[in-house]
Amino acid sequence: MTNYFHLPIGDGYSLVSAELSMAKELFELVDSNREHLRTFLDFVDSSVDETLQENYIKMKLQGSANGTDKLFFIAYGDKLIGTIDLHAIHPTVKKAEIGYWVHADFTRKGITSKAVRALCQYAFDVLELNKLTIMAAVRNIGSNKVAQNCGFTFLGTRPQDSFIYGEYQDMNEYYLVKNDF
Amino acid sequence: MTNYFHLPIGDGYSLVSAELSMAKELFELVDSNREHLRTFLDFVDSSVDETLQENYIKMKLQGSANGTDKLFFIAYGDKLIGTIDLHAIHPTVKKAEIGYWVHADFTRKGITSKAVRALCQYAFDVLELNKLTIMAAVRNIGSNKVAQNCGFTFLGTRPQDSFIYGEYQDMNEYYLVKNDF
Amino acid sequence: MTNYFHLPIGDGYSLVSAELSMAKELFELVDSNREHLRTFLDFVDSSVDETLQENYIKMKLQGSANGTDKLFFIAYGDKLIGTIDLHAIHPTVKKAEIGYWVHADFTRKGITSKAVRALCQYAFDVLELNKLTIMAAVRNIGSNKVAQNCGFTFLGTRPQDSFIYGEYQDMNEYYLVKNDF
Amino acid sequence: MTNYFHLPIGDGYSLVSAELSMAKELFELVDSNREHLRTFLDFVDSSVDETLQENYIKMKLQGSANGTDKLFFIAYGDKLIGTIDLHAIHPTVKKAEIGYWVHADFTRKGITSKAVRALCQYAFDVLELNKLTIMAAVRNIGSNKVAQNCGFTFLGTRPQDSFIYGEYQDMNEYYLVKNDF
Amino acid sequence: MTNYFHLPIGDGYSLVSAELSMAKELFELVDSNREHLRTFLDFVDSSVDETLQENYIKMKLQGSANGTDKLFFIAYGDKLIGTIDLHAIHPTVKKAEIGYWVHADFTRKGITSKAVRALCQYAFDVLELNKLTIMAAVRNIGSNKVAQNCGFTFLGTRPQDSFIYGEYQDMNEYYLVKNDF
Amino acid sequence: MTNYFHLPIGDGYSLVSAELSMAKELFELVDSNREHLRTFLDFVDSSVDETLQENYIKMKLQGSANGTDKLFFIAYGDKLIGTIDLHAIHPTVKKAEIGYWVHADFTRKGITSKAVRALCQYAFDVLELNKLTIMAAVRNIGSNKVAQNCGFTFLGTRPQDSFIYGEYQDMNEYYLVKNDF
Repeated sequence: MTNYFHLPIGDGYSLVSAELSMAKELFELVDSNREHLRTFLDFVDSSVDETLQENYIKMKLQGSANGTDKLFFIAYGDKLIGTIDLHAIHPTVKKAEIGYWVHADFTRKGITSKAVRALCQYAFDVLELNKLTIMAAVRNIGSNKVAQNCGFTFLGTRPQDSFIYGEYQDMNEYYLVKNDF
Repeated sequence: MTNYFHLPIGDGYSLVSAELSMAKELFELVDSNREHLRTFLDFVDSSVDETLQENYIKMKLQGSANGTDKLFFIAYGDKLIGTIDLHAIHPTVKKAEIGYWVHADFTRKGITSKAVRALCQYAFDVLELNKLTIMAAVRNIGSNKVAQNCGFTFLGTRPQDSFIYGEYQDMNEYYLVKNDF
Repeated sequence: MTNYFHLPIGDGYSLVSAELSMAKELFELVDSNREHLRTFLDFVDSSVDETLQENYIKMKLQGSANGTDKLFFIAYGDKLIGTIDLHAIHPTVKKAEIGYWVHADFTRKGITSKAVRALCQYAFDVLELNKLTIMAAVRNIGSNKVAQNCGFTFLGTRPQDSFIYGEYQDMNEYYLVKNDF
Repeated sequence: MTNYFHLPIGDGYSLVSAELSMAKELFELVDSNREHLRTFLDFVDSSVDETLQENYIKMKLQGSANGTDKLFFIAYGDKLIGTIDLHAIHPTVKKAEIGYWVHADFTRKGITSKAVRALCQYAFDVLELNKLTIMAAVRNIGSNKVAQNCGFTFLGTRPQDSFIYGEYQDMNEYYLVKNDF
Repeated sequence: MTNYFHLPIGDGYSLVSAELSMAKELFELVDSNREHLRTFLDFVDSSVDETLQENYIKMKLQGSANGTDKLFFIAYGDKLIGTIDLHAIHPTVKKAEIGYWVHADFTRKGITSKAVRALCQYAFDVLELNKLTIMAAVRNIGSNKVAQNCGFTFLGTRPQDSFIYGEYQDMNEYYLVKNDF
Repeated sequence: MTNYFHLPIGDGYSLVSAELSMAKELFELVDSNREHLRTFLDFVDSSVDETLQENYIKMKLQGSANGTDKLFFIAYGDKLIGTIDLHAIHPTVKKAEIGYWVHADFTRKGITSKAVRALCQYAFDVLELNKLTIMAAVRNIGSNKVAQNCGFTFLGTRPQDSFIYGEYQDMNEYYLVKNDF
């Protein structure tokens, strides 16, 4: 159970609405798993205290007011274990991109896939979107599996499409159209 | 059950996170109960389509990013039946004001009191606020009862403290300190 | 006499319009009376040079453009001895709050009461407000006396309503409706 | 006598601080003297109600917060009879331009010259400016006389330097350095 | 020859820097070719005078200040015949998308391909970008040919990826990495 | 020849559109000629790395979007040798001020005069301005000659009109009306 505004996704896990007051816990989550997270996330090394997380949550809440972003945390009970979000929400084309990460203690258990499926349902039903996209670094096996497990179709590999700690990454793009969900 | 991000408050009712996509349903809720709502709410007559509700939700989401506002809807299943919010959230004094209204079909059932109690819990626990205030028009018997039912203390009557459809209203002020919750 | 835009309040004292160019003198006024002022004002310890006062005056002048604030200084001739302001000016309810402080050398002489009465006259006549409010810390005897001397009515004591140097303060609320002035 | 924040300039006249609440009276002043004022002021024809004056005062108060503008009204007792302002205030060069107009009933009496002299004193002493400039349309005999009466030096005639009701105007530029005041 | 800031692309054609003063000519260009342009451009029907083009150019110039956009016109001498732009310029990944259209009188002559090649050169050399992307509607044969002629590689077909006059369009995505140029 | 968007002014020189990516080269240009440039430019001493130039270019590009500014660089081939700009562009009076400076290696060759003439042509023809103004410090012989060489008329000497490194400068004002070009 959680005291947060949330969507249950089964087995005690849920997606919870992002709050400014969660910045400290979010920083501690990142701080306790730097080695794993820095492989794929570009903000890990620059996170020295919760300031970066405060600004990130604030920016995403402004995006929520503008209709371009929705940030959620993945939680076990009240404990935050990762983030999942919609960004680049397009008001007329009704498409968006999904991003996600979880602490290494909670990978390989199907939790992220449950979170993505719940977010798809929310995006198609509540936000009335028509298409969702996932970008997964080619070398991030787990992230590719999540996209495939959730019924997303592979579009192609975008060369040199992100830049992390001084090196370009090729990214696999996946999509899911509402009618195929 | 609801598909929205929510806090259950019992008997199938819940508080749900406000979404821009709910503006139309919110307008229809107001539109279906104008006679009752216009007695205490100053925006009813100027609500001619969902534009006002869209702007209101957008403004409140911006307040959420700034840390000054949190808007929720009261829902039965997925059906919206009213609103409840925190406004004037003060970051250092850690106090805020509560506002609420419900459609006439759902008054006199204790639903609003349940909603207020759940919001108090959320405000004290998640937002870590220290004091909550309710302003109820003297002549709004129901609203005063909600404050009293939820354990709020009467502070005093503020003369000529709001202005609705051309007439001043006296307002009763109530407060609840975290330690007394 | 003063070279500033002003309202005379008798005996060589006046209220003067706030200017950006007065920031340095305002800082020096605070700096010369830290022990007394820090008892009730939360910005004293963080005032290390006139930067804080510059930003404060600038913010209040923006509030003046928005119709929410009016900042004045209390002066003896051209010498600043305190501040008095209207804040939280409400455009439709036509109410506002009054705040004030004076340097310890000028307390207990009735100057603040004169200043408040002149500000009330200005607020009711020029700004056409309908109600004014004063919040005085319970333990600030002088501030409570000013409210009482100026004909304000006691509404109630708001518990834990401000926060100064790490401690909550209970605040007495007073009001004055235009018709009773 | 006036209830406004003001600087007396003699014979019952004064400069008064601009207030948002004066927009209506300012519009009526313009409206009662359209034929005279439209000769030199470009906003007269577009003034159909007080909206334009409200926006003008608001814009000037924002300029006051930014340190670029100071708007005052010329008043006889509490009655507004014209405007006088500093604009293009330059923070490092410490120079500004003066603008002014009065209702035709109050021209040719030396009132504007008194107002300009008082504004110069205020600008040099309170705002600590170093140079003031007046731009007078070549064909506006009265405005040129005011500049000359107040001790300003003629710099030159700027050809085609303003544009009013579809026609270019040549403008005479005058200046006054603090040391010559 | 042109009087505009420009890059020559051969045969009297050039890319010219967008100016606010070109809004009227841009509107007339659209207005003279509505049937052709509305097939692929969503703004044609809502262009009733140059207001839309003024706002568009202004928005793109703001994007230029933010480092996210560069808008150019394709010109024959001084006559505008189409637009070409970089948008979604990404400061760290150093990628951007290219958009373009030309008036029907100037299609099928290789002009657009010349414009795209010149823009690629400019993007790689002056802006130091690393990758450029083109999105072409599947049914827009000409646009696909331009991408292919300019050495772009096909990535995949994005289903339901734009929305024009009430209907979803599938879009072909192409890319060109700097090293392959 | 240059790869930049440009206007040729003869002998391999041109005016080029300002780009954010040119900040570093612009700083190096200033840095290599501090002694000469600091005589007339107030930003030289505060230029310690390209940050100031980045902010300057960004601010001028925003001015371009607002219709108040146009910044160009003077270049020999692709090498930047100075700047020239229009500022204080007035939308209704259709006037603007011209500013310029070049590296000492390129003075006394008539390059600046060529640049000014090309900018006048562009301002009158493309931006459809009606009058241009040059302000030259009295003691800056070269700058006065440029104005005279380009057919500008002397208006007068403005005393104490700029402030550089703690000292007031008198400025000569020149103008050129479109009809006299």
